[in-house]
Amino acid sequence: MAVNLTAPDPKDLRPVAGVRLGVAEAGIRKAGRRDLTVISLAPGSRVAGVFTQNRFCAAPVQVCREHLAGEAAPRALVINTGVANAGTGAEGLEAARRTCKAVSQVLGVEPQEVLPFSTGVILEPLPVEKIEAALPALVTNLRPDAWLDAAYAIMTTDTVPKACSRQVRLSDGTVVTITGISKGAGMIRPNMATMLGFVATDARLAKPLLDALVREAADESFNAITVDGDTSTNDSFVLIATGAAMSRELAVSDDEDYRKVRAAVIEVSRWLAQAIVRDGEGATKFITVRVERGASREECRKVAYAIAHSPLVKTAFFASDPNLGRILAAIGYAGIDDLDPAAIRVWLEAEGDSILVAEGGGRASSYREEDGARVMKHAEITVRVDLARGEAAATVWTCDLSFDYVRINAEYRS
Amino acid sequence: MAVNLTAPDPKDLRPVAGVRLGVAEAGIRKAGRRDLTVISLAPGSRVAGVFTQNRFCAAPVQVCREHLAGEAAPRALVINTGVANAGTGAEGLEAARRTCKAVSQVLGVEPQEVLPFSTGVILEPLPVEKIEAALPALVTNLRPDAWLDAAYAIMTTDTVPKACSRQVRLSDGTVVTITGISKGAGMIRPNMATMLGFVATDARLAKPLLDALVREAADESFNAITVDGDTSTNDSFVLIATGAAMSRELAVSDDEDYRKVRAAVIEVSRWLAQAIVRDGEGATKFITVRVERGASREECRKVAYAIAHSPLVKTAFFASDPNLGRILAAIGYAGIDDLDPAAIRVWLEAEGDSILVAEGGGRASSYREEDGARVMKHAEITVRVDLARGEAAATVWTCDLSFDYVRINAEYRS
Repeated sequence: MAVNLTAPDPKDLRPVAGVRLGVAEAGIRKAGRRDLTVISLAPGSRVAGVFTQNRFCAAPVQVCREHLAGEAAPRALVINTGVANAGTGAEGLEAARRTCKAVSQVLGVEPQEVLPFSTGVILEPLPVEKIEAALPALVTNLRPDAWLDAAYAIMTTDTVPKACSRQVRLSDGTVVTITGISKGAGMIRPNMATMLGFVATDARLAKPLLDALVREAADESFNAITVDGDTSTNDSFVLIATGAAMSRELAVSDDEDYRKVRAAVIEVSRWLAQAIVRDGEGATKFITVRVERGASREECRKVAYAIAHSPLVKTAFFASDPNLGRILAAIGYAGIDDLDPAAIRVWLEAEGDSILVAEGGGRASSYREEDGARVMKHAEITVRVDLARGEAAATVWTCDLSFDYVRINAEYRS
Repeated sequence: MAVNLTAPDPKDLRPVAGVRLGVAEAGIRKAGRRDLTVISLAPGSRVAGVFTQNRFCAAPVQVCREHLAGEAAPRALVINTGVANAGTGAEGLEAARRTCKAVSQVLGVEPQEVLPFSTGVILEPLPVEKIEAALPALVTNLRPDAWLDAAYAIMTTDTVPKACSRQVRLSDGTVVTITGISKGAGMIRPNMATMLGFVATDARLAKPLLDALVREAADESFNAITVDGDTSTNDSFVLIATGAAMSRELAVSDDEDYRKVRAAVIEVSRWLAQAIVRDGEGATKFITVRVERGASREECRKVAYAIAHSPLVKTAFFASDPNLGRILAAIGYAGIDDLDPAAIRVWLEAEGDSILVAEGGGRASSYREEDGARVMKHAEITVRVDLARGEAAATVWTCDLSFDYVRINAEYRS
């Protein structure tokens, strides 16, 4: 059961002018579930994406990179679940291209204007013919208000569909919308991107701004979460700007309207990324790890990820056991050679309760076991670490490690 | 239940001339269990050690480093379980020093000739007075044949005591003995050393050779295992050479007798390290990850550890599910930027059965799911990876991730 996350109310998901969506049951791996999604974009839309750094990156990721690097402006995204089309060699690449071609034919656009995405089991061939068969009916039913359908159709081991919207009013009174969906629950330790995240806005953004924003938003959201430390072969995060809600183009980063849009895009991205952690496989706790006063952001991230990846820390959270020495051990092996253990302070925090746990290289003298136990009982907990060696900071979100993580992943293919 | 590991037969554990051992129930954390061990060494013994790289290293590790760096030759080791004496600040250091002093008084040696070791819960104070109270009776009962008692007394979440012996006959007919013990089951990803490992020989080794050998042996054994990727605060591996079985000193590395001793020391160390993996928390499978034809040993180790640490790979082994894409994904995110996925080959092997799983960036054409399933059913499995880019190789041993890992670590302190 996801941590403080329920399916969104469809009426809270605002259509984005210039975007229509449709889903189908293509029967790609199992029958009777929606497993194919098409997102069609109005002419003039701009798209930027960031993708997995995994060397075994999936065929659709390779095709996406190719199409985004070319001259053609994307007009459609096609997403299948069930089969990841990763570890599939030359045949996999061919299958991804055939998928693009099939979409281009039913929509009347060019194949290189289609971006393909897959998620599911690695090493199995993609049954393209099932996608080709399902597409004609699917595209007759594209609708601007089908965001929740799409959020459901891209789920794999997710238990809750993930979607959210924000609207911002610009200086001239124009209202622009940002709506996004994401999926993912396991194999989650995005590196430059995430499992699958799609955020669209009808703001009009110059391409250089859009390219910068997709990276900023990824860094503040999908690149700051982990469930199990496994970086997927298919991670993709895409930001779409249709421009359909406004005529003026936002082209400079200090434009006040751009700042509003930027803040809302980051907010939506972060919500979607945190939703993946809340729905992390077997998750019962949502943990924020905040590392402050480091010498660099990179070392703060190292410490935060060492804590967030430690199976011992994660099982202690699952057990609501304030076994805090495990947090100190993780800080100690994070790989910062000249770290001074005696200078570090660690707090456990939940709902306004802030408990100093460690200082001076050991347990804080004010610490009482019952205080730690009280904080650990909450479903949302923050571990705050003060490295006392600089001005940088970083935040990582993760979940606990429970029996259900093992059950879900032992049974994944059955 | 440990994987193909049972308590050793006491008669298979050979005394090492110059070494006597004793254990006691000191009641350090729980009553009624042996939790204190003293290993006394004859004059003239030489000792070398390697210790955790964790910045939050335990107080006894700091004192060991100090004493080994000084002029005094060690005459005794004292080991307690229950409390790790890590994350205990200045008081912890004082407690480790008091422990050394107490041992020195009952044995009639100097405090700086005593090496202290602790393992157990982090962040809790060490009750030195309990150790002081138990020592006088303990030292009246030091025996050369108490290796198995010591192996039991250093256990924490271990389910099986770990000890083994080898003997080698030197060129002049002298027989030298190598006997060692180890403990550890969780928080296992040693970095330059392991949880606790003690190996003694009655061979006479020059100090420079001993110093080199402890590192070589650690690299070939404890530094090549992982259970959960957590590097402990207390990892220590110590090699003792009493010299009591021979008068000649082995002083050069190409001496044939030294090579025999060296091989046996490495064999004992590796057996003890593998025993920790076999008894890994919740382990049902013993996995060897062998990475071959890499450009460097370091990159082979990176790939091997990426596979060995992946919770998804580990749960697939637990489920006996040949979900091999997870192995490819782990190779892909191991951090080798210019890796060519199309050149890599991966085999699954067990008891002479060798199945080519992946090649050309995807599933091998000869691969059949039933072959993978057959190999995965074994309790001992090798994953062999050919990187096809050099002559280096590395091996890492690990276990699977089961429900019991979560149960053991969720309940550890209760």
